[in-house]
Amino acid sequence: MKIVIIGGVAAGAKAASKIKRLLPDSSVQIYTDDTHVSYSSCGIPYYVEGNFEDYQSLLVRSVEEFKALGIDVYLQSKVIKILVPQNQVLVCTGDSAHLVDYDKLIIATGARPLLPKIDGIEKFNNVFTVRKIEDAINIRSKMLSSKRAVIVGSGYIGMEMLEAFAKNGLHVTVLEKNENIMSMFDSDISKLIMNRLVQYDSENYEFLTGEVVSEFVGEDSVMVVKTLSGKEIQADIVVICTGVVPNIEIANDAGITIGSTGAIKVNKLMQTSVENIYACGDCAEKRHIVSGKNVWIPLGSTANKEGRCAAMNAAGVFEQFEGVLGSAVSRCLNTTMAMTGLTEKQALLAGFSPISVIIDKSDRVGYMPNVGEITLKVVADKITGMLLGAQAIGSIGADKRINALTPALLSHMTVDEYSNNDLTYSPPYSPTIDPLINAMLALRSKLSK
Amino acid sequence: MKIVIIGGVAAGAKAASKIKRLLPDSSVQIYTDDTHVSYSSCGIPYYVEGNFEDYQSLLVRSVEEFKALGIDVYLQSKVIKILVPQNQVLVCTGDSAHLVDYDKLIIATGARPLLPKIDGIEKFNNVFTVRKIEDAINIRSKMLSSKRAVIVGSGYIGMEMLEAFAKNGLHVTVLEKNENIMSMFDSDISKLIMNRLVQYDSENYEFLTGEVVSEFVGEDSVMVVKTLSGKEIQADIVVICTGVVPNIEIANDAGITIGSTGAIKVNKLMQTSVENIYACGDCAEKRHIVSGKNVWIPLGSTANKEGRCAAMNAAGVFEQFEGVLGSAVSRCLNTTMAMTGLTEKQALLAGFSPISVIIDKSDRVGYMPNVGEITLKVVADKITGMLLGAQAIGSIGADKRINALTPALLSHMTVDEYSNNDLTYSPPYSPTIDPLINAMLALRSKLSK
Repeated sequence: MKIVIIGGVAAGAKAASKIKRLLPDSSVQIYTDDTHVSYSSCGIPYYVEGNFEDYQSLLVRSVEEFKALGIDVYLQSKVIKILVPQNQVLVCTGDSAHLVDYDKLIIATGARPLLPKIDGIEKFNNVFTVRKIEDAINIRSKMLSSKRAVIVGSGYIGMEMLEAFAKNGLHVTVLEKNENIMSMFDSDISKLIMNRLVQYDSENYEFLTGEVVSEFVGEDSVMVVKTLSGKEIQADIVVICTGVVPNIEIANDAGITIGSTGAIKVNKLMQTSVENIYACGDCAEKRHIVSGKNVWIPLGSTANKEGRCAAMNAAGVFEQFEGVLGSAVSRCLNTTMAMTGLTEKQALLAGFSPISVIIDKSDRVGYMPNVGEITLKVVADKITGMLLGAQAIGSIGADKRINALTPALLSHMTVDEYSNNDLTYSPPYSPTIDPLINAMLALRSKLSK
Repeated sequence: MKIVIIGGVAAGAKAASKIKRLLPDSSVQIYTDDTHVSYSSCGIPYYVEGNFEDYQSLLVRSVEEFKALGIDVYLQSKVIKILVPQNQVLVCTGDSAHLVDYDKLIIATGARPLLPKIDGIEKFNNVFTVRKIEDAINIRSKMLSSKRAVIVGSGYIGMEMLEAFAKNGLHVTVLEKNENIMSMFDSDISKLIMNRLVQYDSENYEFLTGEVVSEFVGEDSVMVVKTLSGKEIQADIVVICTGVVPNIEIANDAGITIGSTGAIKVNKLMQTSVENIYACGDCAEKRHIVSGKNVWIPLGSTANKEGRCAAMNAAGVFEQFEGVLGSAVSRCLNTTMAMTGLTEKQALLAGFSPISVIIDKSDRVGYMPNVGEITLKVVADKITGMLLGAQAIGSIGADKRINALTPALLSHMTVDEYSNNDLTYSPPYSPTIDPLINAMLALRSKLSK
């Protein structure tokens, strides 16, 4: 059995090692146009920040380590075509191209940064995206000689880069085209995130929302970032964090069905519309467990699970991946931001009748040292009482509450049922009544009206 | 409507304020033989440790504050008899006794320390239990002039007192009659807790297991603690943490049914066997949601929920308390110890066919600063695949994993179902694959054999 995997960051790397364990006699080959394989893209902001010195810590498994497992990795080898009828891929390495046979093909091409349309954006030597190992090295190197940074976009990665730059003493301007930063959260929560961060340190960074970049001014390097509203911001380094798009072009060219979200359509076995071809990770569409709808939420933790599932089915072991909750967490300086399930806005779009509560509570008993505050928003459906999702920001205890909701979303639990939940209590870990239970009681009361 | 509540620490105080909110015109009276009302018993070790200076921080609500809410609190007023036929209680205050009428009676008498049978144990002025506000004040005062402490018993409170004394520079000897400390955990986990704590600091404290106290030597103060095996340990202060027993005597005398666990039997409405009499908190029996069996697990978080439920039903608002999971967390120095559901031993006794896995994992991605280690044991039923419980020890991230299992136990989720759970991921918060998911995958593989 010959298994070819396109892409080797998270899903591809996981699929390769899983399939080799299941079918030790199979031939497993990873082709990637990247210069590295199996690395932690999510760790780049922490490398830039200086949490560890060697970028090689980001590398999970080297080409040699894959080789030792019996897996062949071909770097800088781009698959440019999938020839479905003859079960082959056309691989381009340097100036030459050659055909490779497969019995099973796993597409794990991931996603790539989405660049805003700004003249010459790709030519400047101080404008970066945050995705690959080279990005990590180049950003850190440039940052060390920079004083002023502009971050375009304020999603998870933008906020993590803000922390990295601020901790290294740069002045940072975050430009966000939406009305609020972190706009994957409901706007009430996004506003609180911004307030919290501004209160924490209003001197070393600023958020400019509703601002669209119109021009990068400079020769080889950007010197000034101009916005549509006329603002001009000096910059020694610019990082573009305006999101990613799935790499679906070769799948699309091969006639593989692309879902309505723009990512490759797969079933619960991670099979695409074409026999013997699987897709997993950031290039694949996902099913949202709460709404039952197709979504595209590209995250490393999901990529791992999907890679495993694709590998099992490709190896003939039946396995289903049920879908995602959209659970995510990110840190920016003093603020943990976490969510799971649907926001109120998403719930409305998905056809629910959402109601919600927002509560502010201590993360532990008030007399303990280092008490942190948590703002927790929980969303439920007015008609069924079913829990739909939650967002929490504040101290590090915020993500604990989000994780403690996830199984309830998996099993479509109601607010009533959750309000009986027995969470652990001790003064250093939570108030006697956990903020989650406070939120459930407040929701119950709202539901009963 | 006249509501009388016996006891006012956690369940009683909560019941009083809830009922007053529901029935503003009712008369609500709390009678307690204690010198304080509505306080955080769980906070005592942290007061002794010196996390805060004023013991009054332990007081949640004062008599005056209750008065302002329209609730009358009678301190040092012991209810010595419940006269069921005439709906009255006999209250003893100082030398006088008087009868008080009630329409609804809520018994929230709590629990009291269980003292080992040692000659003269109650007469020594340096032997303490950890329950009441006086205990907090007396222990802290005595500790400040002490160099050597003996703690008898190594449950949650014993371990918290170890932290408190060790942080104040005392040498501490913990005596435990069982083979392992923290014996509510499975023995494999208990052993790991002890190893971890001994490695952390082997000079300033020691654990002597399998040791039963035989004698306290001294006049007014204990000077030496002798054990059955012949050990003699010098002590300036002795703390007894050998567990608690429910205060059920007046209920029993009144003919109220006591359950097989020794605590007051209640239904899901917190009703006792006698009409118009409710019980809640540490004096009441609980139902374990995983096993469906009656248990007695006295915890402050449960007391709060039960107090609320009893108050609602007493006020005529239908409400059910489904039961407990036995979730608990405690900290001792560098070690978080948390559990939920059934241990493997409990699962066997409850009639399940338990299997389990133990895994050791980092609490975040390995390249991040301050990586902690977590040991996680998850128990499931071999026949149904149902999750039964988990125990986690290690860094502060341990309790996050335990809480993230609790809703799964509420809904009797299987290992298969949980292995799809979408937990939040980001390098400062968890590894790409959360330890919980690692444990589920290991359990799945064990279940499929």
